[in-house]
Amino acid sequence: MSSTRPDRDPSRTNVAILGMGTVGAGVARLLIDHGDRTARHAGKTIWLSKAVVRDLNKPRGIDLPEGILTDSIDEVLEDPEIDVVIQLMGGLSPAREVMLRAMEAGKDIVTANKALLAEHGGELFTRARQLGRSIAFEAAVAGGVPIIANVSQCLSANQILSLEGILNGTSNFIVSQMDEKGAGYDETVKVAQDLGYAEADPAMDVDGTDAAQKLAILSHLAFGATVDWRDIPRSGIDGLDPADLRYASQLGYRIKLLAIARLVDGELELSVGPTLVRKGTPMAEVRDAYNAIRVVGDAVGPVFYHGLGAGQMPTASAVVADVIDMAVGRTPITFQTLEYFSEDRPARAVQRDVAKLRGRYYLRLHVANHPGTLAAITGVLAEHKISIASVMQHEEHEDAASAHKGTTNGDFVPLVIMTHEASEGAAAAATEAIAALESVDGTAVRMPVRG
Amino acid sequence: MSSTRPDRDPSRTNVAILGMGTVGAGVARLLIDHGDRTARHAGKTIWLSKAVVRDLNKPRGIDLPEGILTDSIDEVLEDPEIDVVIQLMGGLSPAREVMLRAMEAGKDIVTANKALLAEHGGELFTRARQLGRSIAFEAAVAGGVPIIANVSQCLSANQILSLEGILNGTSNFIVSQMDEKGAGYDETVKVAQDLGYAEADPAMDVDGTDAAQKLAILSHLAFGATVDWRDIPRSGIDGLDPADLRYASQLGYRIKLLAIARLVDGELELSVGPTLVRKGTPMAEVRDAYNAIRVVGDAVGPVFYHGLGAGQMPTASAVVADVIDMAVGRTPITFQTLEYFSEDRPARAVQRDVAKLRGRYYLRLHVANHPGTLAAITGVLAEHKISIASVMQHEEHEDAASAHKGTTNGDFVPLVIMTHEASEGAAAAATEAIAALESVDGTAVRMPVRG
Repeated sequence: MSSTRPDRDPSRTNVAILGMGTVGAGVARLLIDHGDRTARHAGKTIWLSKAVVRDLNKPRGIDLPEGILTDSIDEVLEDPEIDVVIQLMGGLSPAREVMLRAMEAGKDIVTANKALLAEHGGELFTRARQLGRSIAFEAAVAGGVPIIANVSQCLSANQILSLEGILNGTSNFIVSQMDEKGAGYDETVKVAQDLGYAEADPAMDVDGTDAAQKLAILSHLAFGATVDWRDIPRSGIDGLDPADLRYASQLGYRIKLLAIARLVDGELELSVGPTLVRKGTPMAEVRDAYNAIRVVGDAVGPVFYHGLGAGQMPTASAVVADVIDMAVGRTPITFQTLEYFSEDRPARAVQRDVAKLRGRYYLRLHVANHPGTLAAITGVLAEHKISIASVMQHEEHEDAASAHKGTTNGDFVPLVIMTHEASEGAAAAATEAIAALESVDGTAVRMPVRG
Repeated sequence: MSSTRPDRDPSRTNVAILGMGTVGAGVARLLIDHGDRTARHAGKTIWLSKAVVRDLNKPRGIDLPEGILTDSIDEVLEDPEIDVVIQLMGGLSPAREVMLRAMEAGKDIVTANKALLAEHGGELFTRARQLGRSIAFEAAVAGGVPIIANVSQCLSANQILSLEGILNGTSNFIVSQMDEKGAGYDETVKVAQDLGYAEADPAMDVDGTDAAQKLAILSHLAFGATVDWRDIPRSGIDGLDPADLRYASQLGYRIKLLAIARLVDGELELSVGPTLVRKGTPMAEVRDAYNAIRVVGDAVGPVFYHGLGAGQMPTASAVVADVIDMAVGRTPITFQTLEYFSEDRPARAVQRDVAKLRGRYYLRLHVANHPGTLAAITGVLAEHKISIASVMQHEEHEDAASAHKGTTNGDFVPLVIMTHEASEGAAAAATEAIAALESVDGTAVRMPVRG
């Protein structure tokens, strides 16, 4: 499509992008280069009027038509002809204030800022409703995988029973690489950084924060729950030991950073952490920076989604789909009828006490190689009413030793135990008691097991 | 929710079901037992007013409130309070006439009748537009997997580049069972029939017709193409030889009934047939009666969907999602802005000549075990400019022999050839020429290879 500005058309939707980073440039490219496509799906022209940046002189890898680029947010907020603001600023502030101002100025919002929604979703959505505005946020979770629309519209005939997924591509890239190459955590993070899959400071990705924020958003949509992401028990893949990937593999599993939400007795079990997933299942085979989500509905059964969770064009695909839905009028309908992030309605599900979560567990210990050790450990498990599914004791080898440098000597060997189903509370208490045994050296590694 | 009829509410949507078979009973169950759920998602009550059946006395496994069941279609068509007709009658006639009459009576349509859309989609959709009515048909393709909404809405920022899938659950069940158990085709069909995965006459499922009809519908949506399903080159899994599953497995592949649509140089390649899919890819691991679809968009990259393609509640899930979208007002918007099944607009992509399709091929021949045979065969391939990727010659064994009863003797052995990329035209001509060689016995088996 030509980038010549068409005559003013009342049925045209004018949009502005706030923040022209990687995703912003991708969105601009789709809107400018593929206007015919968006017009076909929206039934009207979607016109990029403004793109707001901090530094007008920074190269962005895209040629914008004259007059679009500006460093003034006010130019957008004060332009009554701009209908939709595409909010691609990161961080919480001033992103929150700008979003509120934009809505007060009569603009609908499309955003990819998941941290902002996880933190201030209640306030922003309540304010949007008061003002008769809408917020769309497909790009905030799982990038190109349209999980927001699928959970809130396509599966709307279902009570969602569970939702579990690989929601952080950086972590999955790192874990997959470690698994495939047998490499250590630190060196793999460097590879991920070199390839652009991990940021200079990947903390939020690898420590489970990012996945927990996404899980909180999905829990609103799927379960009508009001969840503070900080209340989701979470651990990350930071410091994952290659030995655990190897033992898991020998047992028939891969380790994935899994975010899980599951209805149990009307309460919502939530967790984020490295989890053993059985090989051969679709979830275990999700590699590289891909995301995947398995949703189980009471009518539809399991539906599995798999795609790119990040990156310029996959994320832009989600943003522009939202812009089209906004322009065509679907988003306002959806936004008004769904009750997500609604501060004034009671939550339909409350979060289950973490100690009550139930599952099977993988335990890796470093134990004294002498008689009575296994008896002491299995004794503790029995005390906590945890039964053992399998035990694998290996001879000491290099990796396991190097992972415990300074705490080990030749008399200690790795011991891997798979338990039958137990409560998180019992498993945590038993693990703590085991780690305190004289015959156990170093911290015990414990991960849940799925499938 | 109570099934007591609420006071007349102008914001209520009244629906009627035509056809109370398995899916109809499932839809009624969701609407009656889960009215709170549908009301929450639609922002209004969705009320089942009538259910039309041929035989009022047939047991249906569901207790309908008094006054709902009727054997009169006119009672529905003449009731001005019924807004949406859920068309679950099978076959083409009178389903077509009833749908036209219902739209003329001012009712919107939700249907699962894929054959009707594949056959009369152009007429029905054009008429709906003339009358200002809408047709929703999520359940017509891939059952519970919401592929219609995903292709037409969620991925709307993309030019879809390709779409391939396992769209027929019956075929996939049969092929998976044959693969896992090493069983023959005929006995596996009987197992599928006993388990309810195949109808008494499974012809439309196993011969590729059903998948071709679904692919035609998806091609409208994804590519703006006007496709007559009869023009899609297709073959089925009927008569699939277990030997081919075994050889494919040895080569690292599984055989799946794959429906493929792919843009090549602006033209649309379409095909349905048994295809070798590389093991370890998500598509190869789709088992039992599951459906799966892999969509590649130019922005989003590959997105993979996997779920139950048939069955009472998965299909009902899709139907009720459509009813909610209709009630809430999303479907009318989508229907008016998208141009699918539009008789008066030019197709955006035309179907590519089948002879121009390109791909790699698997050939299985039964050849004379004497010098010169391989030279003759490879000579024919060379004449057609087809180069060979690998050759596998096995000693005669029981299965292969039994598959060629009456045409073989001890001097003939199976020969499997994998080619490099070639055109369908060249591959077909070469295969015909090879089958005519004196040293080749019986019909040559040829299948495309993916991944």
